[in-house]
Amino acid sequence: MTKLNINQDLKALNNQIAAENRNKFQSQGVYVINIMGSPGAGKTTFLENILPKLCSQLKVAVIEGDLATQNDAQRIEKIGVKALQINTNGGCHLDAKMIDNQLQKLDLDSLDLIIIENVGNLVCPATFYLGEDMRMVILSVAEGEDKPSKYPIAFLNADTVVITKTDLLPFIDVDVSVMRKYIAEINPKVLVFETSKKDGVYEAEQIIEYIIEQVRLKQ
Amino acid sequence: MTKLNINQDLKALNNQIAAENRNKFQSQGVYVINIMGSPGAGKTTFLENILPKLCSQLKVAVIEGDLATQNDAQRIEKIGVKALQINTNGGCHLDAKMIDNQLQKLDLDSLDLIIIENVGNLVCPATFYLGEDMRMVILSVAEGEDKPSKYPIAFLNADTVVITKTDLLPFIDVDVSVMRKYIAEINPKVLVFETSKKDGVYEAEQIIEYIIEQVRLKQ
Repeated sequence: MTKLNINQDLKALNNQIAAENRNKFQSQGVYVINIMGSPGAGKTTFLENILPKLCSQLKVAVIEGDLATQNDAQRIEKIGVKALQINTNGGCHLDAKMIDNQLQKLDLDSLDLIIIENVGNLVCPATFYLGEDMRMVILSVAEGEDKPSKYPIAFLNADTVVITKTDLLPFIDVDVSVMRKYIAEINPKVLVFETSKKDGVYEAEQIIEYIIEQVRLKQ
Repeated sequence: MTKLNINQDLKALNNQIAAENRNKFQSQGVYVINIMGSPGAGKTTFLENILPKLCSQLKVAVIEGDLATQNDAQRIEKIGVKALQINTNGGCHLDAKMIDNQLQKLDLDSLDLIIIENVGNLVCPATFYLGEDMRMVILSVAEGEDKPSKYPIAFLNADTVVITKTDLLPFIDVDVSVMRKYIAEINPKVLVFETSKKDGVYEAEQIIEYIIEQVRLKQ
């Protein structure tokens, strides 16, 4: 029971800082997306592909969370988008305080959208709120159909799910309609999008349009 | 600092129970493998494919760890191997006490090998020892080359790494020799194996032979 209470205290403290972050974002009209998913689900690749189009209409910054390395921030900076890297040094999720610590490095007033890529982990980030408007889960078809049932909390708390790598479907034993059914069983309200790479082109038009729409609604 | 100390206390307690588990396994001559990896890395599929061959030479039981569902234990029972399911109800890793709780359901004296499939998570299980002899990380090529660098603790503490789904290599932008290089940078001593599915046949001969050899060495 001690462990449980400690967890509850940590989460209550985190929720308090998340609420403060949310107030800051609200007062500056900045929309914030928290992207979660397994290692290798395709989170950074998704960002690399949606950011050029998002940046043609919005002022965007990215916060990258990883146990180690600057790899992901470097990938994002390469496409000309400001990216801050948080290294958790073994920590399994980002928390609201880590985000708060980064905010002084950003001119919130000049931004429309902050995208936070959480540590690759389908479990722990799901219960640590950061002050975000949208909680997005990225799920690769290569992970298999049943992951929503096996990792329900991430999907239960999500606003959007982006199914990635659908171009691999011909080569694996996965039916995306079954994956969608499992997602809906956990969370019937979540919006589900699909992305794929066809002839070298990453296709993610629907989710890009949806993000822009949501950012505009907040402004 | 409070958080850190609590973590250290929890891990010290876990290590103590893990040592008790290890003594039990040692006294009964049971070899234990702790399989870790991301959601969808192919852990259960790997087990489904190696168990028939292992069971022709060894007496084996499986302990499955998941946040929710009995899916994985059911998949293993289908191939005629005793499987116990632990549901962590949101918990991000198995701990030594959970394993201890299952041991009363197993006749250790009649077993050669226990395989524990941990919760799908490349972060948290890495620092919770269970009393195992071999720590195995399963890494799918679909997760990308750089995961060893980005999730170093799992690889640093591993004895073996099994790279899965190499049959997908023609369809993705991943070079398995680069993945091996990153693994070696983190842990030069770890043994790396590859598995693939060719013409519907799962190929994992090398790792099966290695496991049988290790079990025999303990007996």
